[in-house]
Amino acid sequence: MKKTIIGVMGPGANATDLDLENAYQLGKLIAQSGWVLLTGGRNEGVMDAASKGAKSANGLTVGILPSSDNTTTSEAVDIAIVTDLGNARNNINVLSSDVVIACGMGAGTASEIALAVKVNKKVILLNNDDNSKLFFQSLAKNQIFIAENPIAAIELVTQLLTT
Amino acid sequence: MKKTIIGVMGPGANATDLDLENAYQLGKLIAQSGWVLLTGGRNEGVMDAASKGAKSANGLTVGILPSSDNTTTSEAVDIAIVTDLGNARNNINVLSSDVVIACGMGAGTASEIALAVKVNKKVILLNNDDNSKLFFQSLAKNQIFIAENPIAAIELVTQLLTT
Amino acid sequence: MKKTIIGVMGPGANATDLDLENAYQLGKLIAQSGWVLLTGGRNEGVMDAASKGAKSANGLTVGILPSSDNTTTSEAVDIAIVTDLGNARNNINVLSSDVVIACGMGAGTASEIALAVKVNKKVILLNNDDNSKLFFQSLAKNQIFIAENPIAAIELVTQLLTT
Amino acid sequence: MKKTIIGVMGPGANATDLDLENAYQLGKLIAQSGWVLLTGGRNEGVMDAASKGAKSANGLTVGILPSSDNTTTSEAVDIAIVTDLGNARNNINVLSSDVVIACGMGAGTASEIALAVKVNKKVILLNNDDNSKLFFQSLAKNQIFIAENPIAAIELVTQLLTT
Repeated sequence: MKKTIIGVMGPGANATDLDLENAYQLGKLIAQSGWVLLTGGRNEGVMDAASKGAKSANGLTVGILPSSDNTTTSEAVDIAIVTDLGNARNNINVLSSDVVIACGMGAGTASEIALAVKVNKKVILLNNDDNSKLFFQSLAKNQIFIAENPIAAIELVTQLLTT
Repeated sequence: MKKTIIGVMGPGANATDLDLENAYQLGKLIAQSGWVLLTGGRNEGVMDAASKGAKSANGLTVGILPSSDNTTTSEAVDIAIVTDLGNARNNINVLSSDVVIACGMGAGTASEIALAVKVNKKVILLNNDDNSKLFFQSLAKNQIFIAENPIAAIELVTQLLTT
Repeated sequence: MKKTIIGVMGPGANATDLDLENAYQLGKLIAQSGWVLLTGGRNEGVMDAASKGAKSANGLTVGILPSSDNTTTSEAVDIAIVTDLGNARNNINVLSSDVVIACGMGAGTASEIALAVKVNKKVILLNNDDNSKLFFQSLAKNQIFIAENPIAAIELVTQLLTT
Repeated sequence: MKKTIIGVMGPGANATDLDLENAYQLGKLIAQSGWVLLTGGRNEGVMDAASKGAKSANGLTVGILPSSDNTTTSEAVDIAIVTDLGNARNNINVLSSDVVIACGMGAGTASEIALAVKVNKKVILLNNDDNSKLFFQSLAKNQIFIAENPIAAIELVTQLLTT
């Protein structure tokens, strides 16, 4: 039976230290909640940190890779889905996630939030970028949620999964 | 030899009257400039209006369809590219455009702007949504340009194509 | 760490009784071997039967869905990857599999074998279609292997994984 | 209004001299018939030769590129659609073509024939590979047609477009 999948999206090379710390905590809490973690799968930034956090709590990790092979796959990814789609894989990330958490901000992350809104997914923003919060909340008030920290994000996920 | 392609992205069903008017003018001006118009190809909203504007000036129009057939293709599209990719086709829209003009705002349009930024394309915003301007300029100051009207947008395209 | 993924591809609605029986056995043997099963994920044909076989042995099952939601996902799929790519998702099926087993024959299956050959994957054919065996072996002698039954197919997988 | 698009698919680097000659003639005849030529867009093999043939008769050429930019685009392509989808773009090639001509044989070409069959397109085979003819005709008798030379292929296209 289909397992619950929580997507954590965020910057790769440009992730901040706080993004990485938050991503690790999110991954750990997702695993502890019994959910599967889904990320963009690469061996850097939020994808890598979240996957490592989930493995620290014996979670199951799925990575949706933009590349055509596994040379840049995070070592903390259990199930590597190799798409060779470049950034078009971002749409798969959000379609496959029951709830999306955007941890940090960047162009790829912004595309994932917008694509998630487009297909009626709920997105939780965890970042310090006020412009992004203002914009995405004005775009889709009922689908965008703000979390102050990883624990608050996971509480929101729990609520959203049961509504 | 590859022709210059200008992409016009914008809402479908939710386009405003001003969006539609702007889109028609953009399409017409793009055709008069000798460029090919590329849109998302469907028979509504900004896609349809821009394509009709381009045809009014005997331009060539390309539509990148999200669907698996041509049942919803705008009658003003000459070259219909049928992708069956859903919103993942948004990435093709921006990759295939030499410059992207975002006319109006919505979740799909926001995803296209973000994907364009991600692959280092220049994007011209033509809308009344201040939050989107603030956000995307803060995301990528050097890639986002603001136009007040279709003529100003086309002047910006001309400048961007020669730099 | 990335788990070994074995893909089982085959017809949906047009699968024969023998295809379904073989698919179930393949799924079961893949699970018993400790590998993850990957299929096209839908609730019919070879995809469904292989997934059920794997679950009968407590295996982990991944489904790469062509659709935009989970309404046609097999109940025996644990990890549902929702692509909204239509048949373009066939390329993901083969790229994500360490070895591909084609169980039965049809247009979709033929496309997966050809795409697998294109990206240098090994493919095991398990079917009664002599024309397909002749053609694909002539296309790529070193990448196409013939199995007479599910047990022989799994023995071939074991060999191919260690070379 | 949507123009008629004829797709010519075939090997890149591995095209034979005869494939290239046939592709050039096909492109030329397609242009002379007033149709748009669609290929995989790269600067080698059947894609390049067909596009050059079409341009020799002042035709319009569309290329569906697998890459993320135009560095390998044929100079004979007018409309370059940049997909960054790798081989998944093969599905777009067939979905966008009113009729598909497979000129020569290889793994990529075989995937395009199979994907075309899957979505109910008609395919004309022009090659010396008897195994491929036997297999694809057995797969889909009513969708596969055999041509002995480019002129015969174009006559078949004309017939298929009017039925």
